[in-house]
Amino acid sequence: MNVIDITEKLNSFNQYWSPKVIAELNGQHVKVVKLLGEFEWHFHEHEDELFWVIRGTLVLHFRDKSVELKSGQMCVIPKTVEHKPVAKEECEVILFEPAGTLNTGNLNNERTVSKLEEI
Amino acid sequence: MNVIDITEKLNSFNQYWSPKVIAELNGQHVKVVKLLGEFEWHFHEHEDELFWVIRGTLVLHFRDKSVELKSGQMCVIPKTVEHKPVAKEECEVILFEPAGTLNTGNLNNERTVSKLEEI
Repeated sequence: MNVIDITEKLNSFNQYWSPKVIAELNGQHVKVVKLLGEFEWHFHEHEDELFWVIRGTLVLHFRDKSVELKSGQMCVIPKTVEHKPVAKEECEVILFEPAGTLNTGNLNNERTVSKLEEI
Repeated sequence: MNVIDITEKLNSFNQYWSPKVIAELNGQHVKVVKLLGEFEWHFHEHEDELFWVIRGTLVLHFRDKSVELKSGQMCVIPKTVEHKPVAKEECEVILFEPAGTLNTGNLNNERTVSKLEEI
């Protein structure tokens, strides 16, 4: 039962699109990630995914609409729903999702992070 | 896939110790709660629980130690671990835990909120 400080965790790395695990509970991971630029369209077959913006602005594109998330705002993406995250400027995000969720979902490419670092 | 604004959710109610559900995913609930004063010692038999302080300061007492959480800090309490939350001044907290988790855990008393409001 240690104190997990989000700012401290975010200040400990610089990579983009590389989620780091900061907590695990009930088979779920809490992750922090820094985003900049465009990510691929993808979906998660079995996992709902929560994006929570801590700093900056994140646009989540869906096939039929887009939502813009600013600091203190979150969005749940149900499993199977295609999405494309875009950050025009650097943003910092918390993810809640089941342990084992791949960042690229149904895709396996050079951006896939299959072994997540715990920080 | 709507935008969930945490400040807006927190500004929509005034009760203390009454968690409100703001999102559900993978059988888990994201809740907001306002805390002031002392809560009972309790534990959750089957659920790990995450406390994340948004505003203010929360002290989590355990039988062998205490941790103080300020804004931007979180703590995971594993199932079966007794804890007693204390907020000397009002604080605002996000909870992440399985749907069905009772606020009073193993206790059932006048502070138990068995039917959670979704906001």
